[in-house]
Amino acid sequence: MNPGQFKTPPTLPSRRRFIFGAGGLVIATAAGGETIASGAKQYAVPDDPRKQPGRPANDDDGYGVRSQFARTHRVGGPSWALTPIQDLYGTITPSALHFGIHHAGIPTIDPEKHRLFIHGMVKRNRELSMEDLLRLPRVTHTYFLECSGNTSSSWKEPRYNDIQMTHGQMSNTEWTGVPLRIVLQEVGLDPRATWVVAEGSDAAMMSRSIPLSKCLDDALLAFGQNGEELRPDQGFPLRLLLPGYEGNTSIKWLRRLEVTDRPHMTRMETRGYTDTLPDGRSRQFSFVMEAKSVITFPSAPMILDGRGFYEIAGLAWSGSGRITKVEVSADAGKHWTNARIEGPVLPKAFVRFRLPWQWDGRAAVLQSRCVDETGQVQPTQKELVESRGAKSFHHYNAIQQWGVNAKGEVSNVQV
Amino acid sequence: MNPGQFKTPPTLPSRRRFIFGAGGLVIATAAGGETIASGAKQYAVPDDPRKQPGRPANDDDGYGVRSQFARTHRVGGPSWALTPIQDLYGTITPSALHFGIHHAGIPTIDPEKHRLFIHGMVKRNRELSMEDLLRLPRVTHTYFLECSGNTSSSWKEPRYNDIQMTHGQMSNTEWTGVPLRIVLQEVGLDPRATWVVAEGSDAAMMSRSIPLSKCLDDALLAFGQNGEELRPDQGFPLRLLLPGYEGNTSIKWLRRLEVTDRPHMTRMETRGYTDTLPDGRSRQFSFVMEAKSVITFPSAPMILDGRGFYEIAGLAWSGSGRITKVEVSADAGKHWTNARIEGPVLPKAFVRFRLPWQWDGRAAVLQSRCVDETGQVQPTQKELVESRGAKSFHHYNAIQQWGVNAKGEVSNVQV
Repeated sequence: MNPGQFKTPPTLPSRRRFIFGAGGLVIATAAGGETIASGAKQYAVPDDPRKQPGRPANDDDGYGVRSQFARTHRVGGPSWALTPIQDLYGTITPSALHFGIHHAGIPTIDPEKHRLFIHGMVKRNRELSMEDLLRLPRVTHTYFLECSGNTSSSWKEPRYNDIQMTHGQMSNTEWTGVPLRIVLQEVGLDPRATWVVAEGSDAAMMSRSIPLSKCLDDALLAFGQNGEELRPDQGFPLRLLLPGYEGNTSIKWLRRLEVTDRPHMTRMETRGYTDTLPDGRSRQFSFVMEAKSVITFPSAPMILDGRGFYEIAGLAWSGSGRITKVEVSADAGKHWTNARIEGPVLPKAFVRFRLPWQWDGRAAVLQSRCVDETGQVQPTQKELVESRGAKSFHHYNAIQQWGVNAKGEVSNVQV
Repeated sequence: MNPGQFKTPPTLPSRRRFIFGAGGLVIATAAGGETIASGAKQYAVPDDPRKQPGRPANDDDGYGVRSQFARTHRVGGPSWALTPIQDLYGTITPSALHFGIHHAGIPTIDPEKHRLFIHGMVKRNRELSMEDLLRLPRVTHTYFLECSGNTSSSWKEPRYNDIQMTHGQMSNTEWTGVPLRIVLQEVGLDPRATWVVAEGSDAAMMSRSIPLSKCLDDALLAFGQNGEELRPDQGFPLRLLLPGYEGNTSIKWLRRLEVTDRPHMTRMETRGYTDTLPDGRSRQFSFVMEAKSVITFPSAPMILDGRGFYEIAGLAWSGSGRITKVEVSADAGKHWTNARIEGPVLPKAFVRFRLPWQWDGRAAVLQSRCVDETGQVQPTQKELVESRGAKSFHHYNAIQQWGVNAKGEVSNVQV
């Protein structure tokens, strides 16, 4: 990057409202209403903040609030909330903006009364309180969580023209918990055991069958996230956390683990979370999330403010391990350039990539393509459809394409 | 760790109230009142959450809230707020719990009107809007911030018997911003320039003189923290961020950078943030925070719930680079054991260390001692006082000692 390349953008036309808190230069296209900064207190704005004392530090009751000028928020409905990945700055997703898909709402659970039951093919059944769990050895790691339905809309037309709608079912946070293997070793496993069925305390009693090998590998009984206790919409007081696996398997409000020698064929692994292949068979227990990347700036529906310097930025991740390379193309895949990957590069976690770009003001198509340490290369949509067919819903990880037209308008395209 | 070592603790006596959200097994000693979970909504708690639908995902207006059972909070007053480091889980400090020391309150600043002025010994004066800054190349890194007055109470008697009071002026977050060197290169530096004076927009117009070499190294013009925009109490919309330097120099609400050939001898580098040495001279411009560590669990004023297995946990950091070793002693420094350091080990950032401990129920003194990649070893209090004298206030980095008595009561001791 030659720092002389950047220039001060011209004053924005009044129809374009600059929104702070975005991945950069997000400009509202709609004439639509102001979003209120949820979670913020409103204070009068002095003409010159140097001329009057500011608010006291203890005005927030010991738990800080964000700026009243912040506009970033999850879009969602009664059963879902999407991370505004276009507005994130680094790799950490704030807990307040973590995505969530819920099948019977968010239960309110008293942690003192919560219990985890472990039974089935074990030597000793066990009932653990949160106090019991908090006393055990713990680990902290940063992992992404992605719903296997993330970008599912991209399997077919029409496409959402909004990155939060296409890619918002993913987040990346610092998790703290007890390795599940410690608890399983303590209860003692029947040598014939091969699966564990995990069940939540919500009214859906969300249940998934998990290979025992995963439970003995990096699975966590997680109670901490981003330095504080898990949020209610992330499973407070306890969730299963299966790094790299489709999000649905990381059972929230975890209450029961049954050790078995076969999967239970629960509703969420038969009715849902399976995909129909071209030959008519179902693809089931497709746990591991594939290598994937997306350019978050610029992305639809942003508008670039004229030709000149921009820094392309995005996220890459893989459920199989570390990302080793991210390439970016600004000409619909004809030429590719290695993007700078910011460290630390952690397994099963987001990395942020960045690449300087001098936009000449002409139409362009932006793409990113990642490779992980297992050699997995993010496919084109054509390649993905050739292997999985067009009847799939989950596990779409193809290269995302953003079109930029001469007006600077960014849209979701397939070329 | 032998997982067979842990046991279920006995039921707690009713006078001890279990508090969730702590670094582990924190038990309230006082009969005192319940703390309200600030920042949380209150919901009815069903007897069995499986029997009724939970709250809708969009009940929180797009910005999530923490559990009503969370009790973790910053203690503070009108001009200060301390991080509850005893309650943190990993290395990230949630923005809502970041410490802050303010000299004229927290100003409310409209980001659209905010400007950064760069002038003095430069080729071109420059006025930058937030839009200008957001358009530049940016980087994301995790760094600690520590007030040089952190643990200042430990220079003398009496000692606070509360880790949040002794060590709460420090936090560790993911920062995003523009490298200051990019902007300084763009404005063009007079070759005789050696210092930069940074000034905030608050009513104190907080000002510090910074060596130009630091500004051309890893200094950031930061606008993002933990994935979202900077919070008002952390300098929204813009702060200087000087990794590894005493926190006071990372000027919040940054409005002016004056390039000079000498320090300005501002109030905050003459009246304050200097220390009197044994020979009567003042130690000034003592920017870099020293190698330091502290055991956060157990720590005062916790009470251990009887003999048995505990996992000792703590934090270590150095303003000079990476932590390479943390040792823990449970016998007042007679024997030391290497603690497990959890990665990633990043420069100028917290690392979490952990060590299993079988408490035999007898009085013990716990200590931690760290080493950084420059070879700096955390000193004992005696060593520190021998070199700096007893008239210092800032930059106390000696080994912290926690006494555990036979009742399990943890207190701040010097042995």
